[in-house]
Amino acid sequence: MNFPSKLIESAVDELAKLPGIGRKTALRLVLHLLKSETEETTDLADALTKMRNDITYCEQCHNISDTEVCSICANPLRDQTSLCVVSDIRDVIAIENTAQYKGLYHVLGGVISPIEGIGPSDLNITSLIERIPGSEVKEIILAISPTMEGDTTSFYITRKLRELGVKITTIARGVPVGGELEYTDEITLGRSIVERTSYNKV
Amino acid sequence: MNFPSKLIESAVDELAKLPGIGRKTALRLVLHLLKSETEETTDLADALTKMRNDITYCEQCHNISDTEVCSICANPLRDQTSLCVVSDIRDVIAIENTAQYKGLYHVLGGVISPIEGIGPSDLNITSLIERIPGSEVKEIILAISPTMEGDTTSFYITRKLRELGVKITTIARGVPVGGELEYTDEITLGRSIVERTSYNKV
Repeated sequence: MNFPSKLIESAVDELAKLPGIGRKTALRLVLHLLKSETEETTDLADALTKMRNDITYCEQCHNISDTEVCSICANPLRDQTSLCVVSDIRDVIAIENTAQYKGLYHVLGGVISPIEGIGPSDLNITSLIERIPGSEVKEIILAISPTMEGDTTSFYITRKLRELGVKITTIARGVPVGGELEYTDEITLGRSIVERTSYNKV
Repeated sequence: MNFPSKLIESAVDELAKLPGIGRKTALRLVLHLLKSETEETTDLADALTKMRNDITYCEQCHNISDTEVCSICANPLRDQTSLCVVSDIRDVIAIENTAQYKGLYHVLGGVISPIEGIGPSDLNITSLIERIPGSEVKEIILAISPTMEGDTTSFYITRKLRELGVKITTIARGVPVGGELEYTDEITLGRSIVERTSYNKV
């Protein structure tokens, strides 16, 4: 694509570096910004630069934060006895939005993936192990995606944490709420039968 | 959606103002920027701000330009006898990419749309009419989308230009190249039969 202006071209080039945005979409966004008020562009640019430069990570759970210790870790009303281990910041936001969990988090920053060259030392696993002794944590919930890499990571962490004497659980796998049985894949359906839950818990 | 950081939240808010980008996509883009080098974010922010502040419009054809007169208008090798009228800058880029047209352009900046409150005076129609007398233009090609608003605009311009004694044409409507006859809508197919072209032009 040829552009009538070098300024447009460089703006399109930069936007097209973002994931899921091609050059056609980038051009559409640029032309939208050109049509709207100048402030919209400066506000966007400022918000992005400020976010990138000023953001810090919580020194306890490695979640993104505006302060040294994030608002979840600093909140005394949260349940200090359970710790949810997730691979990504996005997972913290997703679980928080369910409003079903009131404990603490630990963000690994990824999953073990030999293909991408990510080993256990590249993740926040050491800080997870060091966090447990002396804390009130009684249960560690592994909320990691059930992919091959995710399961490897869960297995690795379980083995490392075994000696610490805390209960280790994982989130339930099964048929999604609102999902049709006939469209559920065989492995999930099989697992949902094996790990069935009782209606009349004794 | 609740975010663990105000900085993230404002960046997501600003990105989500762009067309076609919701809050989930915005968050994905923000987390991508957080993972990549700081320069990627500053380069993007700089390119957008610079583009928005420094861009000018060609005083002849109203195309976007880095200079007072755009590179197409300033190019003496372009055919000065034909003028292509388009509604949008995007159309100039699209036609230029076909490499089938070597004449000049005139960008209207939209189409007449009573519903959106856009009248003829909001478009660059006066400057189009003033441009013709004294110029070398012999043919005006109306390349405006065949929607109701586009056809209204074409009709309005045709009536205004009638007295100037220039030839007025419009781009061909018909079955798209590579398109299947059976999937073409009836109006397009009907029009393509009425306006059929001869293989052995006499």
